[in-house]
Order: sequence, then C-alpha cells, then structure tokens
Amino acid sequence: MLALEGKITEEMIAVAEDERLDPEYIRQGLADGTMVIPKNIRHNFRPIGIGKGLRTKVNANIGASGYHQLVEEELIKLHTAVQYGADSVMDLSTGTDLDLIRETLIQESPLMLGTVPIYQVASEGSILKMDPEALFAVIEKQAQQGVDYMTVHCGVTKETVKKLRNHQRIEGIVSRGGALLAAYIEATGNENPLYEQFDRLCDIFARYDVTFSLGDGLRPGATGDASDRGQLAELLVLGELVARAREKGCQVMVEGPGHVPLDQIVANVQLQKRVCDGAPFYVLGPLTCDVAPGYDHITGAIGGAIAAGAGTDMLCYVTPAEHLRLPDRQDVIEGVIATRIAAHSGDLVKGVKGAKAWNDQMSRYRKQLDWDGMFRLAMDPEKARRYKEESEAANAKVCSMCGSLCSINIDNAAIEKFSREKPDTSEKVLAARPAVAAVAGD
Amino acid sequence: MLALEGKITEEMIAVAEDERLDPEYIRQGLADGTMVIPKNIRHNFRPIGIGKGLRTKVNANIGASGYHQLVEEELIKLHTAVQYGADSVMDLSTGTDLDLIRETLIQESPLMLGTVPIYQVASEGSILKMDPEALFAVIEKQAQQGVDYMTVHCGVTKETVKKLRNHQRIEGIVSRGGALLAAYIEATGNENPLYEQFDRLCDIFARYDVTFSLGDGLRPGATGDASDRGQLAELLVLGELVARAREKGCQVMVEGPGHVPLDQIVANVQLQKRVCDGAPFYVLGPLTCDVAPGYDHITGAIGGAIAAGAGTDMLCYVTPAEHLRLPDRQDVIEGVIATRIAAHSGDLVKGVKGAKAWNDQMSRYRKQLDWDGMFRLAMDPEKARRYKEESEAANAKVCSMCGSLCSINIDNAAIEKFSREKPDTSEKVLAARPAVAAVAGD
Repeated sequence: MLALEGKITEEMIAVAEDERLDPEYIRQGLADGTMVIPKNIRHNFRPIGIGKGLRTKVNANIGASGYHQLVEEELIKLHTAVQYGADSVMDLSTGTDLDLIRETLIQESPLMLGTVPIYQVASEGSILKMDPEALFAVIEKQAQQGVDYMTVHCGVTKETVKKLRNHQRIEGIVSRGGALLAAYIEATGNENPLYEQFDRLCDIFARYDVTFSLGDGLRPGATGDASDRGQLAELLVLGELVARAREKGCQVMVEGPGHVPLDQIVANVQLQKRVCDGAPFYVLGPLTCDVAPGYDHITGAIGGAIAAGAGTDMLCYVTPAEHLRLPDRQDVIEGVIATRIAAHSGDLVKGVKGAKAWNDQMSRYRKQLDWDGMFRLAMDPEKARRYKEESEAANAKVCSMCGSLCSINIDNAAIEKFSREKPDTSEKVLAARPAVAAVAGD
Repeated sequence: MLALEGKITEEMIAVAEDERLDPEYIRQGLADGTMVIPKNIRHNFRPIGIGKGLRTKVNANIGASGYHQLVEEELIKLHTAVQYGADSVMDLSTGTDLDLIRETLIQESPLMLGTVPIYQVASEGSILKMDPEALFAVIEKQAQQGVDYMTVHCGVTKETVKKLRNHQRIEGIVSRGGALLAAYIEATGNENPLYEQFDRLCDIFARYDVTFSLGDGLRPGATGDASDRGQLAELLVLGELVARAREKGCQVMVEGPGHVPLDQIVANVQLQKRVCDGAPFYVLGPLTCDVAPGYDHITGAIGGAIAAGAGTDMLCYVTPAEHLRLPDRQDVIEGVIATRIAAHSGDLVKGVKGAKAWNDQMSRYRKQLDWDGMFRLAMDPEKARRYKEESEAANAKVCSMCGSLCSINIDNAAIEKFSREKPDTSEKVLAARPAVAAVAGD
C-alpha cells in the first residue's frame, strides 16, 4: 500500500479536503489501518474515507429480491440515497438479473458500492451443494465489475457456529450470509471456504483494491441474544483476520451488531476496537429493542448514535420497512435521515471537525428567527420548509406552535431591553462537510 | 399524605396492579417521594404512577395556539395519543377559549392531564404588567377544574436569570414559561411570585392533590447550551423546593432538559436525582443535535432512551413538527411511538418488570415466522401489518426483503436437521403493562 510507503495519493487528498484535515493525517490513518478508503481501481468516483477522526459515514442498503426485481426502482433508490446524504450504498440484491443490477448501480453510483457475494451464489443454486470454486469465481467477477467493498462472513466457522449453538439463542442466526454458511458447514461438515482460503481472498481483494468488510454472520438479531458466546467467538476470529488482511496489503473494516440493549453498546464498540486493533467499525443499527416493526429506523438511530459517539465509523441505515418488506423510496429517505441524525449526534461528542460549527449555527439562526437560514442547514430542507409553510404561520416571523407567546421572541425583547449580555449571533464559518455543503448550498 | 401514615389507597392498588408490583412497594415510593401518582381529587380516571421501579411513562403535549383554535382537533389529538399508548397528556393551549378547551379535555381524558398556568395569564394580558394575584387565581381555578399536575417555573429567579445571562448562551431562554417570567423579573425588578410565594402554591396544590411538576424554565434549547451555569443554578433551586413541597404534603416531580449532547445526558439524570433527593424526573427529549427539524421525534428518542435507561421516569414526546408548527394527528402518532420506543429501550436496561418478557416474546415470534404474533405485540400493529400486507409477499411465510433467502427460514431448517440445540420458542407469559395489553389485545 502506498500509504505505508509514505506516499500521499489523490484519493487521500480528496478525503482530506472533504474532511478539512491534513492529507498526512489521512495517510497515517490508512497506514496504521484505522482508516479505509473503499474504492475499486475500476470504479471512478470521488472517494470517501471511513475511520478514526473522520465524520461518521452512513450506508444505505438497496437491491432487489426474488419478490421484487426492477432495475429502475433500484436506480431510484440509489439516487434517493445520494440526494438525502448517504455516503455509501450496498447492493444486496437476490433473485435473478444480479449482474445487470450490479453493473447498472456501479455505473450510476457517485458513492462507494458494497456487495455480499454469497447472495449471488445462493441465488444461483443450493448453498448445501456450493462449490467453493464457484464462490471464488463470483467474488473475482464482482471485483472485476468494480465493487468497492465486499461483506465476507469469514468468521462463521465450524468452531464459532458450535459456540453459538451451545449458547442458547432466542433467534438463532439472522444474518443471511451467516445462516447460509452455517447451513453449509453443518450440512457438509466442511469448513467455510472464506475462512479456509482467506489468503486467496486477500489476493483477489488486493488486486482490485477491494476493501474487506468482515461480516458479522453470527450477530444477534434480538436484543436478548446480544453479546453472547457465538457473537464474541466470531469477533475473535475477525480480529485475527484483520491482521492477516493487513499483512497482505488489504484495506479492512469490521461489521458489528445488530440488536443490542442500550447498556451493551459502548462495550461492543470498545471490544471491537481492541480485538481488531483499531480497524474501522461498521454497525447495522444497533436496534435497542425489538417491539417496534414499522419504526426500526428509530430503534436503529438510538443505538447508532450511541455507537457513533463511542467510536463507530460507519452506520448502516435501518428503514421503517426492516423486518417487514423491501424498502421503497420513502423508506430510503426516512432511513438515511434517521441514520444521519445518529451519525451527527455521535460526531458532536467525538469531536469530528465541523460537526459543532454546523450544529451551533442552526441554533444561532433559531435565535434570530431566520427561517431561510434554518431550512438551509436542515438535514432535510424540503420537509422543514413544508412543515412551516403549510401552517397558518406560513409567512409569520414565529411558528404556529407558540404564536405570539414565542419564547425566542419574548427573550430577544428582554435581552434587547434589559440585559447587558447579548448572545453571540454572528455567523460562523461552517467547516462544511460534503453532505452539509450540498444541503446548505454553500 | 396517606402513604406516610402507612395507608394503602385504591390508587396505590391500581398502580400496583398495572405495574405487577406489590402495593406496599408503591406506598413506600410515594412515602419517600421517589414516586408520584398525579391525580386531582376532582378528576376521575384510573391512576398511573411515575417514578422509581415503574415503567417509564410517555407524555403527549397537545393544545391550541393563537394560530389554531379548534376544540374538536384537540379532542382528536387527545384520543390519538391515548390510542397509541401515551400515559399522560398536557394541554399547552394558548390563545383564547382556554377554559373551554381545558374543561373539555379533562372531561374526555382517561389519562392524567397537566397544564402550564402561566400560559393562560400571558394569553390574557401582558406579562410585564402581571398581577401576582391574578396568577394565583388562575392556578386555583385550574386546580378546581381538575388538572392533575401543573408545570410551575419556580426556579426562574432574579439570581438564576442573572447566572444565565452571565454565561453566554447561543439560544437564550427557550422555555415559554421561563422566557415570560425572566422578562417579568427583568422588566419589573420583582421576584418571581411562584418562588416568592411558594408556600401559598403548596397550599393550593395540597388542597386538590395537584402534583408539582417543577419546570425547567432555563433549560438549554441548543445542545451547545446544555449544562451551563443558568441551567444548573435553577436545578439547585428546584432541589430546595422539592424538600419544601414534600414538607407541605405535596407530590412533586422535576422537569429537565431539553437539548443535550449524548455525553452529558447520564450526568444530567444523575445530578437531578442527587440534587432533588430522588424526585421523579420528567424530561423533554432530550434532543441530541439541532439540525434535524422535521425529524425531532428521532433526535428526541435518542436522548430519551439514554435518559430513561439512566433513571428518568417520564419522557415528554417530541413530534416531527417541533420547531416548525403545532403538531397534527399524524405528528402525534409519530411522536408517541418514537417516545414509547425510547421509554421501552430504557426499561429493558433498568429492569422494569415485564419489559424483557414482552420484548423477547417478539423475538420468539420472529423465529417462528409467526406474523400474527408479531403484529399483536408490535407498538403499532396496524402499521406493521400494512407494511407486510402491501408487499408482494403479503401471504407468504417470509417477507419481501429476503424472499427465499430468509435467514430465519434457512437457520430453522439447519437447526431442525443438524443441530442438537434448539432455541427456546415456547410462549412466555407476558407480564403485560396497560399499554401492551391494549395493543396486544390480551
């Protein structure tokens, strides 16, 4: 890797610009493995970094399934995710037409694109009769197509599956890749080829600069299953594989749970960082309870915020459709925004550059009752404007919540007339980040 | 108070039944002030307890404003809040017709009802010319009407307002009651009558068994303002008033922020509990960032979950309309559900009786792919069912997300065929809580 040789590449400079950090800081992060820039040598787009000291990134899962197979719809979801501020998309398609959908998305995506190659293998034939050569052929093909990072469930092994089965779970294995590989292992008695031939995987990934996303195939799918022996056994294997992938010159991040109660989230992040030697951590949710299907973008945002604040580097969105159906366009919007809220809430407390400047400027606009300023800085300017402008107070300085009893208005008058101390309402330069700049029009 | 005399009342028995706890435990909580049962002697409904060891409660703010004054709409919002599982409603109406709206809501509400009397005073005349006698007359009238608890901003004093003005804030005072009283203090040089004549307030509250909700008039309205000297100075005053209210035989809870970054929420809860000698804590949000107008039910749910897990006893909902307009019916639904998610996520980690049984039963239904069971236990059964049934997999055992690659299905087959250990899918008795029983149809 060039970073190890002390070289600063175009990609590092682009990431440094967007994060307003020094290129040398980015190089150092890549060299010590606490940062990755997922970008296939065959995929041309402005790269985004994931890792220590960087803004927490948001991934949106899209993709068709056997029930729903329309390339046009996936393109709409892709563009929606981009418009609302996602940093990454994963194509999780299953069913047919997988190559067509993937190639179209790679071509159209201005963001990094990730996949889970085992889905294609399982869509094309029985997992119980899987030929490891076919699995590697699919991985090689997807790398050639330009996929930037791939989820590979290398930690689902004979040993870790046994540990999981012996520690009674409510919900068993809920990762698709995890369930497929566990079924293969238990049916055939063979070891997981992604574990057994990990060096071969590294060679393919290194050739195209595909970033590893070491999947958590044994993650908890119920808060009651969190942090059990199966999950932790897999994490220990992933820690070993992080070291091996780095030795082979590969970029690597690690995926994490899932469904985790509030009081175990920080511990999960700290364990991952320790066991995986600071590799970027990429979590799904985590969801902090199980009884809100239809609203799991919210359960996911709660856990995601805590995880981000504790050092998690990328959050996979959860949409209102989770546990119920494939998401549609509106679900994608709600999932991206909820997850960006979680990421930004975390960024505010882990000291990400620019996060507090953006956030506090909104409070200054509120103090000034500057509605256009507020809309400009809002995560979803269109919805914020619509809410205000559809109300009876559409053209008023105040809003219809308090009307003439607006606390801001009353307090501004009091400060003006009676108080020596004035609040600081001067406009601060926004240390803008790409997504903010886009919404803010700066 | 009867609890101090060792007597167990009907109200205590009802609360004990709904929480599945011992009536003596409830009596003890009321006697030591760590629990309240807000219920005016003139308001007849099944009482709900708030405090230590009890399920975290959810309040929904409704009420008209000068811009929007329709009793029928407020009734719809009341019934919507009840239907979706709120435990309390506050009538925050300003404008005209305030007595009519309040009396109608008290009559129709099967839940405790709270108000902020200063809103009526300010709606009926200039706050700068407020006659303290008129303020107490309004409070007495609302107590006679049957209001169960009242927010009174007794901690907004000459001293605390000065502390706030001297510690530069971005957004100043954002509580309506706080801004009104600070303006009165700064304009007239008089002390806040709610502080100066606190004993008189206690006498009125004791006569009707109105519960104090000591308002946080100086709460932060921007995450950048959290935990500043003004906020903490007010908290110290509230701590003294908790002791005085208890001495006068009153029930008392304390309100808290507001907008608080992730890493200060637990500290805020711990400080309140210490300074206010274990009085129940009732927070608004807290919101963990400021840039998501239109989605503040989510920023509020993030902070609310952490607060609940740390010991907060009631969460005030935040709706998507916050900072933009009065909420409508759909906003009420989203606000109540998001806040119930936060409350339940907190209950799972603070060991509230029944919380884990309800939650884990959902995971068992998921493992069984028992969709009717899942819908029955969902916080919003109608939305969950609609999402599934509008999809192409409406009548399928699996959902349209994964289709035939459903991890649950694959793993169930693997467990069935190859594994010795079977997950425990037996149905557990639900330690049902009122809201659960209602949605679950048990």
